[in-house]
Amino acid sequence: MDHSNLFKKIVSKRSFLCVGLDPEIEKIPSFLLRTKDPVFEFNKRIIDSTSNYAVAFKPNIAFYECNGPSGWKSLESTLKYIRKNYPDIFVIADAKRGDIGNTSKMYARTFFEKMDFDAVTVAPYMGEDSVTPFLTYNNKWVILLALTSNKGADDFQYHNEDGIRLFERVLTLSRKWGSTDNLMYVIGATRAEMLKEVRKIVPEHFLLVPGVGAQGGSLRDVAKYGLNSKCGLLVNSSRGIIFADNSENFDKVAEEKAREIQKEMELCLSERNLV
Amino acid sequence: MDHSNLFKKIVSKRSFLCVGLDPEIEKIPSFLLRTKDPVFEFNKRIIDSTSNYAVAFKPNIAFYECNGPSGWKSLESTLKYIRKNYPDIFVIADAKRGDIGNTSKMYARTFFEKMDFDAVTVAPYMGEDSVTPFLTYNNKWVILLALTSNKGADDFQYHNEDGIRLFERVLTLSRKWGSTDNLMYVIGATRAEMLKEVRKIVPEHFLLVPGVGAQGGSLRDVAKYGLNSKCGLLVNSSRGIIFADNSENFDKVAEEKAREIQKEMELCLSERNLV
Repeated sequence: MDHSNLFKKIVSKRSFLCVGLDPEIEKIPSFLLRTKDPVFEFNKRIIDSTSNYAVAFKPNIAFYECNGPSGWKSLESTLKYIRKNYPDIFVIADAKRGDIGNTSKMYARTFFEKMDFDAVTVAPYMGEDSVTPFLTYNNKWVILLALTSNKGADDFQYHNEDGIRLFERVLTLSRKWGSTDNLMYVIGATRAEMLKEVRKIVPEHFLLVPGVGAQGGSLRDVAKYGLNSKCGLLVNSSRGIIFADNSENFDKVAEEKAREIQKEMELCLSERNLV
Repeated sequence: MDHSNLFKKIVSKRSFLCVGLDPEIEKIPSFLLRTKDPVFEFNKRIIDSTSNYAVAFKPNIAFYECNGPSGWKSLESTLKYIRKNYPDIFVIADAKRGDIGNTSKMYARTFFEKMDFDAVTVAPYMGEDSVTPFLTYNNKWVILLALTSNKGADDFQYHNEDGIRLFERVLTLSRKWGSTDNLMYVIGATRAEMLKEVRKIVPEHFLLVPGVGAQGGSLRDVAKYGLNSKCGLLVNSSRGIIFADNSENFDKVAEEKAREIQKEMELCLSERNLV
């Protein structure tokens, strides 16, 4: 899926919502624990109930990996289920990988060949040769960490050389490694005002914005500073949707939460005349 | 295993060699491909043949993950095999993970609870709360990326604020998050002269040094600038040992390569009166 197709999907769904599939086993409704693969059952219901309102799903790999080989099976089943039933949805492996070249190549193979994700999140610390192996695939995306949503973002991401902060250097250097068709950036919603600075460097790139909801970021602020003429945003919500309820009706509540966010997104898009 | 126990093992083996278990399936001797789990078979033979000369083993997770659920089984089998047969050896999950707090907690659970690794490598980009969940376990270690061995290390790790380069900031800030008993750093052998700078900030910490061998780093230089009074070094070699030969005798050749390195390490240790 390229940049313009992604924009088309956003327009047709009037949504730039990404639902984070982070099925923490302790938080999954208990009645699901009796099923053969509770993680997959949970995901399936979340996917079915939110797919009308989301343009993307984003499993965070940590929540699968912690269940060992069976966790990887849950992940594979989840991806296959999305591909089969919702082929138009963009699927992101939130893996935050990154290693020396020959090793990053293996990670790329995992997420783009072994599995068929559209995108993978990558950590920039090790520089160009740790990122480029992910950029050699057609219609596959790297989503590079730039400015994250957590408190620890302050520790290193603002390290400032002659007025250029580290996250700005990451944006400036890395945008030459790929294009607006295969490279996005993670910019945390908890730092929405920084989106103005980010847009000076990467006006056209898509940004994946976590941190709305449980982490406290505001969707209105993100839209205000982050939207561009092709939307240019995927805003993730995970816990605020998937764990909004833990009864047998959790999927209905998740649907309602996703719909609320979609409505707000539709408003943001229409104010910019994008829908 | 704490700092002083690790030093004792180094003294008793007269070696600070870490063997990287990176079983790239295309490079494994072809006769092993007929076995049920070629990755595990390969590892088993490498482990058996090099364990006399190594104090640590370091599987890089990418080379397991790329085989999906069965890859994770190979990893689990490998770890169990080491634990059962060589309980004194320090085992590092080279995973380069790091995410927001609740997610890093899951990664820590994967490598320290679900599996029983002694240490996991962590990427520092997301700061303190992405690292500390790994530091809450007794006798478990974080090995934080500081200055890596690849070309891309130049892109961001030297970003310089008022004379303090990013890798130096990583060292300076993070050393307060843990202690010399649960925190080490990755410093690439390809930048051996930088070890002098690193030792100014973390004189007592252990350093995990990749990049000797295939990547071109020199063991003598690493020892010269990196050794401290408790050794303070684990030097990794992977391809130079495990893929030195691909005949049916590959494990004998690996043993010979490991022994050569151990002999050189013994010399370095004895020149410093550490053995």
